[in-house]
Amino acid sequence: MSVIVDLSIFPMDKQGTGLSPYVARVLDVIGQSGLDHRLGPMGTAIEGEWEEVMQVVDRCYRALEEDCGRIYLSLKADIRRDRTNGLDGKVASVREKCV
Amino acid sequence: MSVIVDLSIFPMDKQGTGLSPYVARVLDVIGQSGLDHRLGPMGTAIEGEWEEVMQVVDRCYRALEEDCGRIYLSLKADIRRDRTNGLDGKVASVREKCV
Amino acid sequence: MSVIVDLSIFPMDKQGTGLSPYVARVLDVIGQSGLDHRLGPMGTAIEGEWEEVMQVVDRCYRALEEDCGRIYLSLKADIRRDRTNGLDGKVASVREKCV
Amino acid sequence: MSVIVDLSIFPMDKQGTGLSPYVARVLDVIGQSGLDHRLGPMGTAIEGEWEEVMQVVDRCYRALEEDCGRIYLSLKADIRRDRTNGLDGKVASVREKCV
Repeated sequence: MSVIVDLSIFPMDKQGTGLSPYVARVLDVIGQSGLDHRLGPMGTAIEGEWEEVMQVVDRCYRALEEDCGRIYLSLKADIRRDRTNGLDGKVASVREKCV
Repeated sequence: MSVIVDLSIFPMDKQGTGLSPYVARVLDVIGQSGLDHRLGPMGTAIEGEWEEVMQVVDRCYRALEEDCGRIYLSLKADIRRDRTNGLDGKVASVREKCV
Repeated sequence: MSVIVDLSIFPMDKQGTGLSPYVARVLDVIGQSGLDHRLGPMGTAIEGEWEEVMQVVDRCYRALEEDCGRIYLSLKADIRRDRTNGLDGKVASVREKCV
Repeated sequence: MSVIVDLSIFPMDKQGTGLSPYVARVLDVIGQSGLDHRLGPMGTAIEGEWEEVMQVVDRCYRALEEDCGRIYLSLKADIRRDRTNGLDGKVASVREKCV
């Protein structure tokens, strides 16, 4: 199965410092995984097998857990048999059908 | 850390049969975990430690993967240090502040 | 169409005070709408027609906008033709199919 | 307030035909609004004032309602006072802090 996850995770107890340092830390973890991904304004899309993707989600959580007292995580996944190159493929498939 | 997850997971390729048999299958998996949970109209809230909750999410996925060709999963989590009895506690804390 | 929305909305710049006073303010707004709803640990489910439900979401936002500098909103909706009593009906339909 | 919404909306009763024609229809509606937006693999980010963005969400729903019997909508929003150019700004702010 090809799993595409859109992941947002951020601390809720760090308002003074802004969230981008924490999101950058999470993006570094995602980058180290080697999985194909796309950073967007509201979350990062990650593609891989189920175990791979969930392992990255776990590492993202652990990267924040150490110094954050409250964390919010939002995740949606589209899981499909026999799909390849889903990150670019889904976008291209929509664009070619637009007026 | 106390993790409260709200989980929705359903097949996208079973429109003819309705979704409730699949949601029931997922709820049975959640019930077997022994974790405290609340079924709602749009998802099921589950409380536990991070590893426990993510293991249940994994089992829910696997319970659908076997016979579903496309699956949608939506999850949000509120993760907080030093919280106990979060499922009832959060609701009670809101209700006591209502007018 | 019967619209069931699961709504979470909270300030991101009020960490010191806790979120429950703001969630209570939102729940009061939802209650004043007269629409059927269920408060849960991770959000509130609201049922109505599209215009009714979106008007309540608008009012919830405005109730926080006045004194919150940053707000997070998460919403999912299941919209279905010819459904009645969806809040209890969906839960009952799942429960009767559990083992 | 600058509102950035991530919107996913798709029919749940059209499995045979694939979802991309419906997502393309929604993207056309978003494009006609003139609001700044970014199509991603799991949703479309849209930036504007609250009323503008919610009006686009309303139009997207109406574009599907006419011929879809069941619709799923997922939306998250980050709403912030005194932000400009949020779609590119949020991504740039994260990237410059990555290792």
